[in-house]
Amino acid sequence: MSRIQIYDTTLRDGTQAEDISFQVQDKVQIAKRLDELGIDYIEGGWPGSNPKDITFFHEIKKETLRHAKIAAFGSTRRAKVTPAEDNNIQMLIEAEPDTVTIFGKTWDFHVSEALRISLEENLELINDSLVYLKERVGEVIYDAEHFFDGYKANPGYAIKTLQAAAAANVDCIVLCDTNGGTMPYEIPAIMEEVNKAVSVPIGIHAHNDSECAVANSMMAVSCGAVHVQGTMNGFGERCGNANLCSIIPSLQLKLGKECLGEDKLKTLRSASRYVYELANLIPNKHQAYVGNSAFAHKGGVHVSAIQRHPETYEHIRPELVGNRTRVLVSDLSGRSNILVKAEECGIDLDSKDPVTLEILEDIKQLENQGFQFEGAEASFELLMLKAMGKLKHYFTVSAFRVIDTLRESDKAPVSEGTVKVKVGGKVEHTAADGNGPVSALDKALRKALISFYPQLGEVKLFDYKVRVLPAGQGTESVTRVLVESGDHEARWGTVGVSSNIIDASYQALADALTYKLYKDNI
Amino acid sequence: MSRIQIYDTTLRDGTQAEDISFQVQDKVQIAKRLDELGIDYIEGGWPGSNPKDITFFHEIKKETLRHAKIAAFGSTRRAKVTPAEDNNIQMLIEAEPDTVTIFGKTWDFHVSEALRISLEENLELINDSLVYLKERVGEVIYDAEHFFDGYKANPGYAIKTLQAAAAANVDCIVLCDTNGGTMPYEIPAIMEEVNKAVSVPIGIHAHNDSECAVANSMMAVSCGAVHVQGTMNGFGERCGNANLCSIIPSLQLKLGKECLGEDKLKTLRSASRYVYELANLIPNKHQAYVGNSAFAHKGGVHVSAIQRHPETYEHIRPELVGNRTRVLVSDLSGRSNILVKAEECGIDLDSKDPVTLEILEDIKQLENQGFQFEGAEASFELLMLKAMGKLKHYFTVSAFRVIDTLRESDKAPVSEGTVKVKVGGKVEHTAADGNGPVSALDKALRKALISFYPQLGEVKLFDYKVRVLPAGQGTESVTRVLVESGDHEARWGTVGVSSNIIDASYQALADALTYKLYKDNI
Repeated sequence: MSRIQIYDTTLRDGTQAEDISFQVQDKVQIAKRLDELGIDYIEGGWPGSNPKDITFFHEIKKETLRHAKIAAFGSTRRAKVTPAEDNNIQMLIEAEPDTVTIFGKTWDFHVSEALRISLEENLELINDSLVYLKERVGEVIYDAEHFFDGYKANPGYAIKTLQAAAAANVDCIVLCDTNGGTMPYEIPAIMEEVNKAVSVPIGIHAHNDSECAVANSMMAVSCGAVHVQGTMNGFGERCGNANLCSIIPSLQLKLGKECLGEDKLKTLRSASRYVYELANLIPNKHQAYVGNSAFAHKGGVHVSAIQRHPETYEHIRPELVGNRTRVLVSDLSGRSNILVKAEECGIDLDSKDPVTLEILEDIKQLENQGFQFEGAEASFELLMLKAMGKLKHYFTVSAFRVIDTLRESDKAPVSEGTVKVKVGGKVEHTAADGNGPVSALDKALRKALISFYPQLGEVKLFDYKVRVLPAGQGTESVTRVLVESGDHEARWGTVGVSSNIIDASYQALADALTYKLYKDNI
Repeated sequence: MSRIQIYDTTLRDGTQAEDISFQVQDKVQIAKRLDELGIDYIEGGWPGSNPKDITFFHEIKKETLRHAKIAAFGSTRRAKVTPAEDNNIQMLIEAEPDTVTIFGKTWDFHVSEALRISLEENLELINDSLVYLKERVGEVIYDAEHFFDGYKANPGYAIKTLQAAAAANVDCIVLCDTNGGTMPYEIPAIMEEVNKAVSVPIGIHAHNDSECAVANSMMAVSCGAVHVQGTMNGFGERCGNANLCSIIPSLQLKLGKECLGEDKLKTLRSASRYVYELANLIPNKHQAYVGNSAFAHKGGVHVSAIQRHPETYEHIRPELVGNRTRVLVSDLSGRSNILVKAEECGIDLDSKDPVTLEILEDIKQLENQGFQFEGAEASFELLMLKAMGKLKHYFTVSAFRVIDTLRESDKAPVSEGTVKVKVGGKVEHTAADGNGPVSALDKALRKALISFYPQLGEVKLFDYKVRVLPAGQGTESVTRVLVESGDHEARWGTVGVSSNIIDASYQALADALTYKLYKDNI
């Protein structure tokens, strides 16, 4: 089983993304996590381009990495100066990385238009920059920028640039699809020519502008590439870089290549989420392999099938990448979904039990009213428990009022909520201000209930979504509110539907608090 | 230039996505938009699976589509019954679509494990289901479920199932990568065998579980497929279906195939966003071709290069798909945008006029606060007019109050709004009930203003959308309200943003009424 080198550039190319900017400490933390994951190369930055990257190379030296090599990125020397005179190249050496990666021009059009030098001159500066670095750094990798576009424009010259690099005994030549426009069916013929022309190990660096970055990387490996560059979660400029969280499992589980090892692969999902966390981005739930929905099943047919044989609708075992199978409930789903869901919730339900059909009917009816239980599993669980007579009655909200007032002098209206709750015999009648009517109601409700159930103080509101249904009927139509709540150990979603947004919000908020009490076995 | 059929299943397979649930109206609206876009087939649903889909097929008949055929989805007959006795098949016919698409089993393992019938029996029910439908429906398409997995498990049998379908003279056989696990490098050899075995037109239906759905679709077309199935924005179960918003431009601009035509391709981005809007999902800014960041450049080397030659770092011209280049450092693109927008609104604005820069600054600030003017052009127009001192001051709302009350006896809370407006010297102070706080405020506001401006009686509220920004911060975060209003001759969109949903709604409603007065030259 041959080994493929994984080269991560989340900390360099990844930070080119519009919405990503890492502090030095973030970069160090991510580098350590990627090392644990078993990544071979971690490209830390471009020392010549900004001080933050220089600091990173100082800081990372203080850490002891188990496996990964730290790479510094830069470019071939400028024209008219020697490598020794080139500031960028000197800074690469000063950064003292394990590996240096520099890019050079492959596309004749770029040589004349961007560099404004002769084609011959470009070959020289590729070669002598690499020779100079190879004498001073342990390992040198060459990124052939715009290789595929360059090859299509002028195959002969593109190949010459690779040969200029090969002549410098570089350790790897990486074919870059810099603009991300290459199609997977173009790769085999081009790779064949490259393999004929140079005997240096070949790598691939793809961008996702045609949504083919992962596929193009897989195509290249199937054509002999032994080194793959990409980023965690596909972060990167424009449409992103090739997504290592998709490439690594495909290499190991489908192409039978060795990268991280099976035990490390199991930590892929958590590593993916860790990087999202430090980037302060919400994970893409539909992401291949590691997303929350990657193994979520909704259709009734599918669900009953995966019960017997997961492979019927799952291309791999989710556990292999640290993910899991999830069953969703919706009007598309059959009895089997209900049963599986019940089992997930630790509720013992029998397929022959009439209550099962009852629940199924309730759901179809509720969904016709506009309810939606994906993302509101807690409300669904409460619904099942109620139907089975297994849910305690924790509290009654006998009355509430929300007042939003804008007075002559005010800039924005102020919101006040009042709530009257009954628990056992006792009545609590209280009020709270809020930043808008929903938060006023939420605060008053908690305030009233906390005197009976202190643990409700732990409940946080994480997300609040509103959808007016059906579109095209204005404010009179039905409003659906989805609320995501959580405490120190779990998160749960609840839903409410009403023509009145306050009422819908109240339903979802009340479910959220009820669920907390149920799950804590109060 | 050969033509490729585009088959959209956003309304069927797309709704399998965890976070998507369309109302029937949404589905009809999307179908109309896809027809305008030039999509060849629109799969509306599975009549046999749920009532919502049956209603769609009734509703869509009331619309006149220019180009698209409406397809209904179902499965081959059940074992032990004839097609005439099979309820699913009868419902397909009753739906009266232009085209029927049914799927059958290709993978021997599924036949014995899921259907629990003999391999021979499966071939019969594929064939006679299709023969029966072909006699009764204009066009019949066969989806070979799990084709690639089935082929890898038992090539001979997988091919036999295709031949059983071909023998029924189906119009197209679609190879489905149902589990999304197929790698692009596997496709050419398999397609070669398929092309040898059957002479029916071949289609591809890919899922994105390995992040290769778009690439696999492109590979299949490069191997002779003439029909591509997918969804808008790649919506779909688990990791989604093949993304038509990436496939269509690649087919036209890279493979030189004919799909929508160049003029339609220019509307791809707006169609993509329209579908996001109706799904109430935030568009993926990094999406290939149509995303906000797809042609965004973060300065440095790239920016100076694309100023001279866009092709240096852009794989296509963004205008071809209705997108644009964005330079993230110095927003040169912004000013020209304002000018274009002003021209659209018939407002005469000079690029040298300082007010242009002023407006640009206002917009940047407002967008930072969460405002969004796509879909709220009326608010944008009012903003320009205000900055230019060309907007009359029609009214002042000096105070309002909204009260939602749930009393002991009530089922749902009642909402009352009170508003105090000043027009000229006169003050009108009035109140109204509403179906929820926003409608109460809306009604009170109109009631107060109608005495001064009777024409406001013509204004109808068509749509009301709420989004909480940023997701993940609960009810305290900023709320954006988009309102669509109209009268007998026009429709217009307005926007409001505030931490208080009532305040945000008020802003959007006030803009909507102001715009009516402005447009009627009051």
